[in-house]
Amino acid sequence: MVRSIVEISGHIIDSLILPKVLDLIVNLGAEFEILKIQVGHRRADRSFARIQIGAATPNELERVLAKIKEHGALPVETEHDSVELRAAPMAGVFPDGFYSTTNLPTAVRVNDRWIDVESIEMDCGIGVDVQAMRAQCVPIHRVQPGDLIVVGHHGVKIFPLERQVPRQTFEFMNNAVSTEQPKGFLIREIAESMKRTRQEQGRILVVAGPGLVHTGAARYLVELIERDYVQVLFAGNGLAVHDIESALYGTSLGVNLDKNIRASEGHQHHLRAINEIRKAGGIKQAVEQNVIQRGIFFTCVKKNIDFVLAGSIRDDGPLPDVVTDTLRAQDHMREKAQGVSLALMMATTLHAIATGNLLPATVKTVCVDINPAVVTKLSDRGTFQATGLVTDVEPFLRSLCQHLRDEQQPTA
Amino acid sequence: MVRSIVEISGHIIDSLILPKVLDLIVNLGAEFEILKIQVGHRRADRSFARIQIGAATPNELERVLAKIKEHGALPVETEHDSVELRAAPMAGVFPDGFYSTTNLPTAVRVNDRWIDVESIEMDCGIGVDVQAMRAQCVPIHRVQPGDLIVVGHHGVKIFPLERQVPRQTFEFMNNAVSTEQPKGFLIREIAESMKRTRQEQGRILVVAGPGLVHTGAARYLVELIERDYVQVLFAGNGLAVHDIESALYGTSLGVNLDKNIRASEGHQHHLRAINEIRKAGGIKQAVEQNVIQRGIFFTCVKKNIDFVLAGSIRDDGPLPDVVTDTLRAQDHMREKAQGVSLALMMATTLHAIATGNLLPATVKTVCVDINPAVVTKLSDRGTFQATGLVTDVEPFLRSLCQHLRDEQQPTA
Amino acid sequence: MVRSIVEISGHIIDSLILPKVLDLIVNLGAEFEILKIQVGHRRADRSFARIQIGAATPNELERVLAKIKEHGALPVETEHDSVELRAAPMAGVFPDGFYSTTNLPTAVRVNDRWIDVESIEMDCGIGVDVQAMRAQCVPIHRVQPGDLIVVGHHGVKIFPLERQVPRQTFEFMNNAVSTEQPKGFLIREIAESMKRTRQEQGRILVVAGPGLVHTGAARYLVELIERDYVQVLFAGNGLAVHDIESALYGTSLGVNLDKNIRASEGHQHHLRAINEIRKAGGIKQAVEQNVIQRGIFFTCVKKNIDFVLAGSIRDDGPLPDVVTDTLRAQDHMREKAQGVSLALMMATTLHAIATGNLLPATVKTVCVDINPAVVTKLSDRGTFQATGLVTDVEPFLRSLCQHLRDEQQPTA
Amino acid sequence: MVRSIVEISGHIIDSLILPKVLDLIVNLGAEFEILKIQVGHRRADRSFARIQIGAATPNELERVLAKIKEHGALPVETEHDSVELRAAPMAGVFPDGFYSTTNLPTAVRVNDRWIDVESIEMDCGIGVDVQAMRAQCVPIHRVQPGDLIVVGHHGVKIFPLERQVPRQTFEFMNNAVSTEQPKGFLIREIAESMKRTRQEQGRILVVAGPGLVHTGAARYLVELIERDYVQVLFAGNGLAVHDIESALYGTSLGVNLDKNIRASEGHQHHLRAINEIRKAGGIKQAVEQNVIQRGIFFTCVKKNIDFVLAGSIRDDGPLPDVVTDTLRAQDHMREKAQGVSLALMMATTLHAIATGNLLPATVKTVCVDINPAVVTKLSDRGTFQATGLVTDVEPFLRSLCQHLRDEQQPTA
Repeated sequence: MVRSIVEISGHIIDSLILPKVLDLIVNLGAEFEILKIQVGHRRADRSFARIQIGAATPNELERVLAKIKEHGALPVETEHDSVELRAAPMAGVFPDGFYSTTNLPTAVRVNDRWIDVESIEMDCGIGVDVQAMRAQCVPIHRVQPGDLIVVGHHGVKIFPLERQVPRQTFEFMNNAVSTEQPKGFLIREIAESMKRTRQEQGRILVVAGPGLVHTGAARYLVELIERDYVQVLFAGNGLAVHDIESALYGTSLGVNLDKNIRASEGHQHHLRAINEIRKAGGIKQAVEQNVIQRGIFFTCVKKNIDFVLAGSIRDDGPLPDVVTDTLRAQDHMREKAQGVSLALMMATTLHAIATGNLLPATVKTVCVDINPAVVTKLSDRGTFQATGLVTDVEPFLRSLCQHLRDEQQPTA
Repeated sequence: MVRSIVEISGHIIDSLILPKVLDLIVNLGAEFEILKIQVGHRRADRSFARIQIGAATPNELERVLAKIKEHGALPVETEHDSVELRAAPMAGVFPDGFYSTTNLPTAVRVNDRWIDVESIEMDCGIGVDVQAMRAQCVPIHRVQPGDLIVVGHHGVKIFPLERQVPRQTFEFMNNAVSTEQPKGFLIREIAESMKRTRQEQGRILVVAGPGLVHTGAARYLVELIERDYVQVLFAGNGLAVHDIESALYGTSLGVNLDKNIRASEGHQHHLRAINEIRKAGGIKQAVEQNVIQRGIFFTCVKKNIDFVLAGSIRDDGPLPDVVTDTLRAQDHMREKAQGVSLALMMATTLHAIATGNLLPATVKTVCVDINPAVVTKLSDRGTFQATGLVTDVEPFLRSLCQHLRDEQQPTA
Repeated sequence: MVRSIVEISGHIIDSLILPKVLDLIVNLGAEFEILKIQVGHRRADRSFARIQIGAATPNELERVLAKIKEHGALPVETEHDSVELRAAPMAGVFPDGFYSTTNLPTAVRVNDRWIDVESIEMDCGIGVDVQAMRAQCVPIHRVQPGDLIVVGHHGVKIFPLERQVPRQTFEFMNNAVSTEQPKGFLIREIAESMKRTRQEQGRILVVAGPGLVHTGAARYLVELIERDYVQVLFAGNGLAVHDIESALYGTSLGVNLDKNIRASEGHQHHLRAINEIRKAGGIKQAVEQNVIQRGIFFTCVKKNIDFVLAGSIRDDGPLPDVVTDTLRAQDHMREKAQGVSLALMMATTLHAIATGNLLPATVKTVCVDINPAVVTKLSDRGTFQATGLVTDVEPFLRSLCQHLRDEQQPTA
Repeated sequence: MVRSIVEISGHIIDSLILPKVLDLIVNLGAEFEILKIQVGHRRADRSFARIQIGAATPNELERVLAKIKEHGALPVETEHDSVELRAAPMAGVFPDGFYSTTNLPTAVRVNDRWIDVESIEMDCGIGVDVQAMRAQCVPIHRVQPGDLIVVGHHGVKIFPLERQVPRQTFEFMNNAVSTEQPKGFLIREIAESMKRTRQEQGRILVVAGPGLVHTGAARYLVELIERDYVQVLFAGNGLAVHDIESALYGTSLGVNLDKNIRASEGHQHHLRAINEIRKAGGIKQAVEQNVIQRGIFFTCVKKNIDFVLAGSIRDDGPLPDVVTDTLRAQDHMREKAQGVSLALMMATTLHAIATGNLLPATVKTVCVDINPAVVTKLSDRGTFQATGLVTDVEPFLRSLCQHLRDEQQPTA
């Protein structure tokens, strides 16, 4: 039996952190003994526990330690551990035994000092610049030969998200992937959260799928952009094409709506819209040349809002603005997601999951889709902070805009 | 090879009736030869076809004839056929070989005269009163020993529904079980259809599930009732209990909404609401005793709107108004559905399907649910006229009420 | 500020009971102070906590106490409390302030003695026979005027289910409502659990919907019955009708399968099957008269397996065996569910939820459906022990039978 | 009123082509008059219709003619029309008014001769090499300045797919997106179709998502590959990573299966698997270096089966074999899809839709997913030949392999 002693502190009972840690220890085949526990007597008080872990082999012990670290349980001796660094053997390859990141705030101990890992994101490595005493999250495709990468998990500290005191409504929505909810209230909460975010100069990221245009909700996204509730927009070729098709062939879209969506000219208009923008040279140029004069992307250009159109193999065309290389698209998304504090994802699976993968756990995420499976899938991916709302995107955005309009008056 | 000649007329090409009949013949293993065809040259013109069918055995031929009859294809000699009647052998049992109904308008030939079958409904028998020269659709549990019941399919004529000329939007929605639709337009169409129905003194039936209350949509159903857009309401114990719970414990439901729907007191209130109504003796009595003072059922009582609460094995309580015997409940529903020309089914599977089973094909049906499977299931059951809309019921009803308010002004 | 002190013990940290209790206190607007805590040092050790709760008003305090009691947190003075009993005012009506049950093991204190509540089931009252010193769970429709019913929550103790030590696989499946699982393993676990249940003379309840017949899985349910893995069967008219239709018109069902399910003769056969059984007088009689000679219900009759066919308003017919009154059907289900230790629910929503409502929390429940929404819905209803498996019922039963066959050999 | 006369022939009544054409004319606001109709008297006979179309403006008439052409209705004068060709103005841009393709067999008339359009695919242009008298489908991103591209729709002929005589089971499955089907029969049909395809030297394309590995179905895909039922495989990074992770860390995946899928080490193994393959230089190299020794991709390499791994923005890593540029990935897929006659798509939305976009309508497509929405979505995209099966992919593949094994014996 090999043993190690870990400590854990914070709102560990109330935030379910202690029970989860005990759970993991036993599930991984190890044993625990609680050596000391101090429980905060009141809500605001912090608790503390010292736990001895016993495992059959050093390997097993390591696995347990690596895992419970994600919940903030750190070996007592770790305070004095340093990270082990090893040079990447070749471009795009981590050294063996590399440490794989979570999306939680993380620090590494280098030369007896704890330094924060910048741009934290799940499923990456950690690169350390010892001279500059900086640590950086490194996606695998960006690693260069010789880069110093953290291996093992010694000298790595993770700060689990605790639930806030007092609770916020948002938190309670976490598991509520249900169609039978009083959604009016939840939408008001989202509106208030967006307003608060903007009052604090926070950036809001919108990720949206083409269903937004199909269901007639584009006008509400335009309104959000105009009212400064969108600082950056992630989407695919589809959203942009359908938005532009609607801007270009408005009247015939009108005809389509009169005859239902399967109307005959759909395909043609969509490819013609792509051709027009390709001819103009891109969306910005098409706006400047007055080719498009309204819609989501017109408004983005006019308001100077950043957008990233990421390519997918199901794209027709695509528009010249689409970043067809998926690695470059991810890198653009990484860059533009910097400083975002609220992400609103609507009617998209691919772009929502891709964005969720890149965001740190500290970004509040709201995922809206009429399909419960999409909402559940996003919540399942370790993006702990995701709030799901199963509803139709058009009335959702309509209500959201209504709340944002109403709520702006009191502040005036 | 046994042969028979059938004729079929109407908008049989345009309404896909002719292709369907040819399809059925071949699928059932028989052959056809088109002896004569006259195709209407313009949209409004009717077409006519005379088709010879060949089958290997008389039995097979009978099967083909029975089946294509549902599409209005009638053996030429049938005009002179009479129905064969046989006495029911015992209570609740049809004679062998009984004719099983569709939900399409049907006539039977008795004593050389065609008489319409009253109260047509699918999966029943046809009882004939030869003295009175009346034919009636008979659910199996109502048949009495000695009742004369149609056997075989001779002397039975079915009138398939043709698509209307000119087309109505409603028709085009038929197959559109999709979440990505411009729903605003469809909702407006439904509103217009409801308005038209009321202008023509038609009756509107609403079938609703408890999700209506959970999602905060009850107020809109109240508005529909107040504006005379609901002539009869079918539901279960759940809708009534949640509506009454909300009427009785409004403030604590308010609290619940503030803390999300899974709040702690849900169960208790729901059973207490049931107990209160049982104590009062029923919903009407509870309204009279001022126990409940608002909500869906309060409004029904005040406006004197008929409702049928049909029992289910998942009911708690139930309320005294619930018809716990399912056969009696069906019979109540049958009675109250008489004369209905539009049925609006929302957020319910069980009650929607049960109602769909009882309605003739001529009643326009709109089925709204956030779950595409429910909408598809209803459309699949041979209730040919069902229009599906996959959306969230709360914003659906909110928009519907908005349209009905807006649209009432022009007529004033 | 009104205060009360509660105690709670057991695996309260590990089983998440303590965190949940603290959560509830705060969510209900009250405060807590942990006066004393003893944490078990090892997995098997029990923990103990004494918590002081403060609320603004006596009413609020009562609400908190009532709620946390469901998790086993009992006011310290309660050990000496007795229940308050009040006579039911009329038939089918509980006295005001009646105690509403959970489905967890419950005891009440009468004359200074704790007695177990028999036949515990959620959303009922508790009737006490003081002479006989017996307490019974009472569904509201069964209460008689003068029955002594528990009011308030003093003198009521609830025993929360703790997770077992060591864990069983079953437990881990609890929240796993996902389509992307290695289902082979889970099915083997279910098979082993069924086998263990039978070795311990436990009773297995199967609840099944008509999809079982439509997808060709009926033969596997027959095999389960033949191998003594079904002690009681709950279903509706649909399952029985389709099973019997298949038994009666096998060849034409064969034809149907060749031409796909929407084949032309479906409706007729289904109503004819009903008519045949009505003519025979019931399923048992039809077996005795050799009208049906195979299938699920044939096998039930031959093996003398109890079944309950509960009525629903969507039934055609129904078969004479169907209990059309839903209250009587519930009572039959209650009676037959006595002593069941494992419930396997497949391809049914209505019957699964109705059964889940009647079972105590100690019955292991497995719910299998291809629709994740059904599985989620069942898990959400407070039937804490429900294990969900999202898969197709035909291959599920095929694999289950395979495992049960394989596993019987080692014991031979 | 502007008028034009079109002709249409073939199994136009039986295949619903005539009714659809009449429908379109009226829906687009035009009128029709049937000038002549000859209906085939027997199943095998072809029919013929000459229809005069009247529209309010030349533009409207053009729209109608363009649309009904997709169903094979051609203006009578068209037989002598030639296509109009215009040079592409710049790279990646079609000339204004370009003709947009369907996925149906298409011919264009150049210099008084009809020539087939090669590599037909929907939503592309048609490029013509007048010297060589060849016409080619051109995706927009491939067009070069000066390429001659068809504009307008004169001189373009489309050959609608007619339903086959005699019908094949496959056809009847077309609309059957239902979970309640006798799937055993359908799976056997798919097996037979695969066998027939291979006997005729046809190529089978498999498109698969990572759920295949998660649900334990990878072994069956390996078996299909080994038995020569897979000639080309399309997938994403996810399928390959999970397959390789399973090949590399088999035992720990075993551990995972024992503890359910959410086991603790998932993330790490997945990124480590990626790192190993990046280190080796690619999948083929990893096989050659004995890094991976089993699994789907190992078998592909050993059997020399082509695969295309197309990139997506949700990829981790990715593997070196992934084509990260989506346009290049589409081009690879286009190339490898040449000559495919059956496509089997399982547990993937993105790759299934992307592949569906590239295939001509003549390729039989089977789409299997547990989520009805995915199956419906694929059927809705104009890939007319798609057959949907809503079931769990693991038992589907297990049964499919069983049938292919069984069925090989008779031929031996």
